[in-house]
Amino acid sequence: MYCVLVPGVESARVEGPAEQVAPEAARAHDRPSRCLVGGAHAFILRVSSYFGLAPLKFESRSNGLSVSISSAMCIYSYILVTILVVCTILGLVAEVSAGVEVSVRMPSRMAQVVSACDVLVVVLTAGAGVCGAPRRMRTMLAFMGSVAMVDTSIGGKYSKSTERKLCALLLCILIFFSVLLADDFCFYAMQAKRTDRQWNVVMNYAGFYLLWYVVMILELQFAFTALSVRARFLAVNDALALTARHLYIPLEKAKSPSPLNVYAIRVSPPGPGGGVDPRANVSLLVDSLAAREQPVVLTKSVHGTAALGVSPSEAVRRLASLHGTLCEVVRCVDSSYGLPLIVVLISTLLHLIVTPYFLIMEIIVSTNRVHFLVLQFLWCLTHMLRMLVVVEPCHYTIAEGRRTQSLVCRLMTSVSERPALGSLPSRVELFSRQLLLQSVCYSPLGMCTLDRPLVASVIGAVTTYLVILIQFQRYDT
Amino acid sequence: MYCVLVPGVESARVEGPAEQVAPEAARAHDRPSRCLVGGAHAFILRVSSYFGLAPLKFESRSNGLSVSISSAMCIYSYILVTILVVCTILGLVAEVSAGVEVSVRMPSRMAQVVSACDVLVVVLTAGAGVCGAPRRMRTMLAFMGSVAMVDTSIGGKYSKSTERKLCALLLCILIFFSVLLADDFCFYAMQAKRTDRQWNVVMNYAGFYLLWYVVMILELQFAFTALSVRARFLAVNDALALTARHLYIPLEKAKSPSPLNVYAIRVSPPGPGGGVDPRANVSLLVDSLAAREQPVVLTKSVHGTAALGVSPSEAVRRLASLHGTLCEVVRCVDSSYGLPLIVVLISTLLHLIVTPYFLIMEIIVSTNRVHFLVLQFLWCLTHMLRMLVVVEPCHYTIAEGRRTQSLVCRLMTSVSERPALGSLPSRVELFSRQLLLQSVCYSPLGMCTLDRPLVASVIGAVTTYLVILIQFQRYDT
Amino acid sequence: MYCVLVPGVESARVEGPAEQVAPEAARAHDRPSRCLVGGAHAFILRVSSYFGLAPLKFESRSNGLSVSISSAMCIYSYILVTILVVCTILGLVAEVSAGVEVSVRMPSRMAQVVSACDVLVVVLTAGAGVCGAPRRMRTMLAFMGSVAMVDTSIGGKYSKSTERKLCALLLCILIFFSVLLADDFCFYAMQAKRTDRQWNVVMNYAGFYLLWYVVMILELQFAFTALSVRARFLAVNDALALTARHLYIPLEKAKSPSPLNVYAIRVSPPGPGGGVDPRANVSLLVDSLAAREQPVVLTKSVHGTAALGVSPSEAVRRLASLHGTLCEVVRCVDSSYGLPLIVVLISTLLHLIVTPYFLIMEIIVSTNRVHFLVLQFLWCLTHMLRMLVVVEPCHYTIAEGRRTQSLVCRLMTSVSERPALGSLPSRVELFSRQLLLQSVCYSPLGMCTLDRPLVASVIGAVTTYLVILIQFQRYDT
Amino acid sequence: MYCVLVPGVESARVEGPAEQVAPEAARAHDRPSRCLVGGAHAFILRVSSYFGLAPLKFESRSNGLSVSISSAMCIYSYILVTILVVCTILGLVAEVSAGVEVSVRMPSRMAQVVSACDVLVVVLTAGAGVCGAPRRMRTMLAFMGSVAMVDTSIGGKYSKSTERKLCALLLCILIFFSVLLADDFCFYAMQAKRTDRQWNVVMNYAGFYLLWYVVMILELQFAFTALSVRARFLAVNDALALTARHLYIPLEKAKSPSPLNVYAIRVSPPGPGGGVDPRANVSLLVDSLAAREQPVVLTKSVHGTAALGVSPSEAVRRLASLHGTLCEVVRCVDSSYGLPLIVVLISTLLHLIVTPYFLIMEIIVSTNRVHFLVLQFLWCLTHMLRMLVVVEPCHYTIAEGRRTQSLVCRLMTSVSERPALGSLPSRVELFSRQLLLQSVCYSPLGMCTLDRPLVASVIGAVTTYLVILIQFQRYDT
Repeated sequence: MYCVLVPGVESARVEGPAEQVAPEAARAHDRPSRCLVGGAHAFILRVSSYFGLAPLKFESRSNGLSVSISSAMCIYSYILVTILVVCTILGLVAEVSAGVEVSVRMPSRMAQVVSACDVLVVVLTAGAGVCGAPRRMRTMLAFMGSVAMVDTSIGGKYSKSTERKLCALLLCILIFFSVLLADDFCFYAMQAKRTDRQWNVVMNYAGFYLLWYVVMILELQFAFTALSVRARFLAVNDALALTARHLYIPLEKAKSPSPLNVYAIRVSPPGPGGGVDPRANVSLLVDSLAAREQPVVLTKSVHGTAALGVSPSEAVRRLASLHGTLCEVVRCVDSSYGLPLIVVLISTLLHLIVTPYFLIMEIIVSTNRVHFLVLQFLWCLTHMLRMLVVVEPCHYTIAEGRRTQSLVCRLMTSVSERPALGSLPSRVELFSRQLLLQSVCYSPLGMCTLDRPLVASVIGAVTTYLVILIQFQRYDT
Repeated sequence: MYCVLVPGVESARVEGPAEQVAPEAARAHDRPSRCLVGGAHAFILRVSSYFGLAPLKFESRSNGLSVSISSAMCIYSYILVTILVVCTILGLVAEVSAGVEVSVRMPSRMAQVVSACDVLVVVLTAGAGVCGAPRRMRTMLAFMGSVAMVDTSIGGKYSKSTERKLCALLLCILIFFSVLLADDFCFYAMQAKRTDRQWNVVMNYAGFYLLWYVVMILELQFAFTALSVRARFLAVNDALALTARHLYIPLEKAKSPSPLNVYAIRVSPPGPGGGVDPRANVSLLVDSLAAREQPVVLTKSVHGTAALGVSPSEAVRRLASLHGTLCEVVRCVDSSYGLPLIVVLISTLLHLIVTPYFLIMEIIVSTNRVHFLVLQFLWCLTHMLRMLVVVEPCHYTIAEGRRTQSLVCRLMTSVSERPALGSLPSRVELFSRQLLLQSVCYSPLGMCTLDRPLVASVIGAVTTYLVILIQFQRYDT
Repeated sequence: MYCVLVPGVESARVEGPAEQVAPEAARAHDRPSRCLVGGAHAFILRVSSYFGLAPLKFESRSNGLSVSISSAMCIYSYILVTILVVCTILGLVAEVSAGVEVSVRMPSRMAQVVSACDVLVVVLTAGAGVCGAPRRMRTMLAFMGSVAMVDTSIGGKYSKSTERKLCALLLCILIFFSVLLADDFCFYAMQAKRTDRQWNVVMNYAGFYLLWYVVMILELQFAFTALSVRARFLAVNDALALTARHLYIPLEKAKSPSPLNVYAIRVSPPGPGGGVDPRANVSLLVDSLAAREQPVVLTKSVHGTAALGVSPSEAVRRLASLHGTLCEVVRCVDSSYGLPLIVVLISTLLHLIVTPYFLIMEIIVSTNRVHFLVLQFLWCLTHMLRMLVVVEPCHYTIAEGRRTQSLVCRLMTSVSERPALGSLPSRVELFSRQLLLQSVCYSPLGMCTLDRPLVASVIGAVTTYLVILIQFQRYDT
Repeated sequence: MYCVLVPGVESARVEGPAEQVAPEAARAHDRPSRCLVGGAHAFILRVSSYFGLAPLKFESRSNGLSVSISSAMCIYSYILVTILVVCTILGLVAEVSAGVEVSVRMPSRMAQVVSACDVLVVVLTAGAGVCGAPRRMRTMLAFMGSVAMVDTSIGGKYSKSTERKLCALLLCILIFFSVLLADDFCFYAMQAKRTDRQWNVVMNYAGFYLLWYVVMILELQFAFTALSVRARFLAVNDALALTARHLYIPLEKAKSPSPLNVYAIRVSPPGPGGGVDPRANVSLLVDSLAAREQPVVLTKSVHGTAALGVSPSEAVRRLASLHGTLCEVVRCVDSSYGLPLIVVLISTLLHLIVTPYFLIMEIIVSTNRVHFLVLQFLWCLTHMLRMLVVVEPCHYTIAEGRRTQSLVCRLMTSVSERPALGSLPSRVELFSRQLLLQSVCYSPLGMCTLDRPLVASVIGAVTTYLVILIQFQRYDT
């Protein structure tokens, strides 16, 4: 609904002459139109752009790819999705009109209804994903500025190896899904060979399988974005723990000094030879801030250990502010992915009810179709994986939110009554009050909260349903 | 339960001699008996009054309609609803006693029970709506004073075009619903023609279809009221964001200066030539306040931009007070629409279970009754729409409540430690503590909270139910 | 679990020499062993004692009945319930062994299981109620002291007419229930007449019907207790509103001055001629407090209007303390009625599933047994009533808790920044923080919260179940 | 996820030269590698170690057993569980391939699926339990240090008799479960005798029954751990109540002076002749603290009554800190038992659905297999008991958490405005704010909260399911 990201919150701290600040604050309201990306983020955006989910123009620079909204790509996206949707719908109509006798996926009137629902849900999800893509990308460019500011203000660094691992994971998921889709496609084509309809099936379902791809990449895009945001919450928490350690309050064990920047939305600082036009660069404000302000965490090169770059009191104030900014980012991501996520959740629930049913019926009735059995089992696994891809990043984010609460709470208990700490106690108390009002969670369209209890209730519903169905089966046959 | 609206909260700020204040405070307790309405609000009240849901007397004035509770209209309402209910019940009895052989809507014993439940639920809803109407109107007159005070205190203005759009939307919904009812009526009348019972059907069901109208208008009335209140929450939030901007804390992007007064309960200020008796006018107190106090937001005519009319500290104090008043208004609306809303929700749930079932069975069994198919589909859509008409305004209100929390939280973080701001930090902190105790939500009779998760659980229940029914169908036929 | 009521909280305010206070505080820990009751409370305790649910000794005094735990009555309770339970179990065994051919309530193997469950649930509820009665009465004597202290400290008074109305309501419910049970009994006896087994049925089911009575009175006893506590929350809230009015903050409309003491646990102050031994009187401490402290609310006889007896600041402090005491009382009532309430809820849920099913099947299958139809309808109504008897008082209590929150919140907003009010702002703030930590709700055994959403979910479960059953019925017959 | 226990929180109070504190704080981060246990804790660890659930080395000392992680035992655990799992899976395959005609537990294709699920769930639970055992034990050694610090800081003592009772209870549960398993085993072996397959059955199911043992002991281990932690919450609450009494605020009745140390993780202080190496002893820091700091509660030997050992203000500060430490311990236990608990809950839910169904069908269909009937009834009871073993300790912990809230709330109300109390009011207020941010509950993997409402919803689901099944049964047979 209301998604507002103003990276200049920090700059408003100046209490001096208002005239100087006002234009800067006004400038901060300009929508950023381009930014530099690299590593896994560039990879996922590239893949998304092929499937119409990221209408961006990529320009190669010395230190990464510069991305910006591209009208041409928007038109490509819309044309692509329109063609796919029209093909799929026409294929569905063709299959339905072919009749229940020769159709391989619709051997009965009931199967026609179920199959049509299945196709329509996929069409709806992909359509919602592609149509909302330009707005989503514009939001992404906006909150990448905030995220970059958090990185600069905390003093995080990127690791190449983590980026590579992430790219590999993404590739694995996509390859597994491709193999599954191809196998499913072949199975039905082979079935259709008996009635010499294999080319009809190939033509009728090609669009459907391509739309499945769009849905899968949409989910991965959300998961990636949520993980990126969560990595910043983690960094804020680590900096908070470091602040506590600095005060000799050992809230947590000392961790390795560089876990701050695992997943990556990479916004490179524009060096003197950097290819990005400084006037269009989102991180301009951030850089000017960075030039003026010391980052919270410094990584000393000698021992490789992290240290506080500012006083604990200042660190707490800035971490509280960054936490507030990240909560805004969560709200933005939530509102820009709302509709597609809800459609994805409903489709996953329906598939999780129907697929295991076919699997178990196949086992019990046992007509020796091993290929079908394996296929159904893999589909079960895939739908489970799809749900986890969406829910797990949200769960991790919520867990980090709870860790922040715990850390602030312990810090509050420890620093009270230590007058030597100056304004620290009151700032920690302010942070604690801020946490009571701000919640860190994703709830697409406000329909439900994406976390593990949702998974638990879905599993519970599916289990109950399957037990009832199987139990009754016994008495009907 | 306890619905208390005292528009004079503002006036109690005077700490001087108590004797002067006391009579004024006492006067503020008088129930307001009339107020000026205009635009879409006048339209919905007019339509409601025809169907017995708003027993008001309308008097035309120069700047709108003056409305007041009318005993004559109360009697008209009661007579109208009594006649309709008696007709409906008699019709139901006649149809049941006609037997399952010739009845078009009750071809079986089971259909008789389902149909009787359907009719009784509509009768109950309409009855609850009409019987509570006088009390509801009295509450409405009371909280319109509070709403008008909020408008005056913030400095909002009305836009004619928004009013017109709203009227058009209302008309569209009513026309769609009329067409659907007429079509449904004709379908069954035509069915009955085969057995020459068409006039019996027309007579037996006329009351039932008219009661459907009463139910629909009741829902629209609630939706309109909730949207009005929500527009004020929006205005308070916008003023809060403006306050933050004034302090050079850019919490949100600057918006267009006049979004404050979208939906409309219009309380006109009584100009010197205004037709309303000043002694009976609810906005008297508000006006005297307005004369004494500057509105929070001023719209400068030169640039068309909004500006703060008072100091930020005073603005926060008054916005907190207005927020509290609006929470009271929400509680009032909630308690006055409690019973009808619950009956509406239960009836919607039942219809959402039964209607799609008939739709899907019709598709699968396929007896080529295209008219029936389209009709069932439209009824599905209508029941979904009815649920959304009730739930969406509540969802928007809750979202505004969350936005208030977020704004106050960010403001609190930003203004602390700025001694130049005087009492502002402590006032923002007070606002934040107030938000912890007051919740902005509608929960009719305390039975459930009206928001999107309710829709999600209804959709979930309906889906599970349909999947079970259809799955079993396969094995029974 | 932990149920601790120390009426002497007020007395601990003395900060002077500790030696004087200590013995008094220690004495306050003595369990009170007797107290004076009157009106409706005496009536319900009398009725309870006949059915073994209140093992008390009643002694008539000039100003009411003095009650105390009686060992003789405890033994009577245990003997009574043992006889009834043994009779019921033997009757059940006799009916089961009579065989499905001649039994009127168990025409099938399935009906035997359902009927046995029905009987066992009633036996369990009554057993849990009677066995826990002595402990429950001891807890009641303890919290009556707290309640009396609240009454004295606030300055509430009792109205004879309300007492009489309450007694009448109790009698109505009991008479309705007696008629229903008698009718049910006669119906089955008449059915059994056909096979000449009427005397067997009378003997086998007499114990069962008497145990139903025990269950019903147990529920009424809880409802009465919860309503009594709720009346004190209401009084605290009214006094809070009066305090606000005293400060010219018109939070609520002025109400009639004497609504403070509706339902009644009556603890008479022991006048000089009072018959209660002062040393054993629970209200001793309260009286000495009352002698030392002015009640918060005074009812002036001239105008009949209520006024504050102490300063607003002192009033808020004492109302906060009283609110805390009442929260303790709620916890005590909750823990002493925990087990029977849970059994009652489960049995109500089961009955609400089974009874409407028989009712609807009877309507659809239609074998013209009008008596059976009416009987089933009345049972439906009774089970609904039983659920409401348990849940409604809890809902009212929760609603009062919310009203307290709202009042304190508005008061907090209004009194801040008024230095003339002395310690009032800080005390109101303390009250608000107290409300964040203490919740006012009944949750028997921690299993669920007794409020309207519970009713909603029960109705939802029953509705879904009935819809599924009836829908399937169509395809099975 | 994040499980960090730093026993040195107390020591960080020193505000002097940081150089001295830093090494001590750093040392506090070393993982403790051994500790002293005794009584019931030693018993449960011994039993666990036989079944591979506690890979520890036990060394006998003068004042208990010294335990430490043992690599040899880890290898033993892994080998044990591998053998059992392989045996069970092979047995399952053998039974399935024996065919539905001769198998006693799998008379149909459907029974094969159900039985395979049953076996796989047990295998999964035991596997998850054993594989996570080393990590769990390491966590246990870590939080035992925290628990010992709480004991020392509060001044609790252990009672031999309670330890003995606890051991007896554990033995009873284990013996009951052994008898049940043996009976079940014999029943099926006897059934198999008819087809001369008894030795096949014995061989095929031996591994399965042994894995059941592992599951049961895993649950008991969790229950024991949770009860230990809960006993410390109880002790903190009692100390809080004692503090209140010391201030002449009689929040609760005086209890017996030594209920502090019921359940036991016993960490003996190393006397001069103690056998544990001081350098490796977890309680070193605690002892040095104890030498420096007076325990909060002293038990005077003359009257046997407890008394405060420090000033109330210091007591509240230290109790708040201990409460925070215990919350960390809860989080640790929660994260280390997460996965096995979820598997246990799902398996219990499935068993609670299937077992009563067989029981009731057996009663209704009635084929006179009394042994089978009793066996099914005992299994029902056992699965119910398993659920309670897991949920009840968590419920008690939550109840203690609520009691803390209530105590702090009452204390806050009472101590405000008493300037003589020094820093006490601000410390109590800090405690209250800490309670708002920290919650005391177990939620394995974040999937659900372990408390009584979970039991209620499980019972509700099972009841609904059984009612539907039995109701339908009537119409199918």
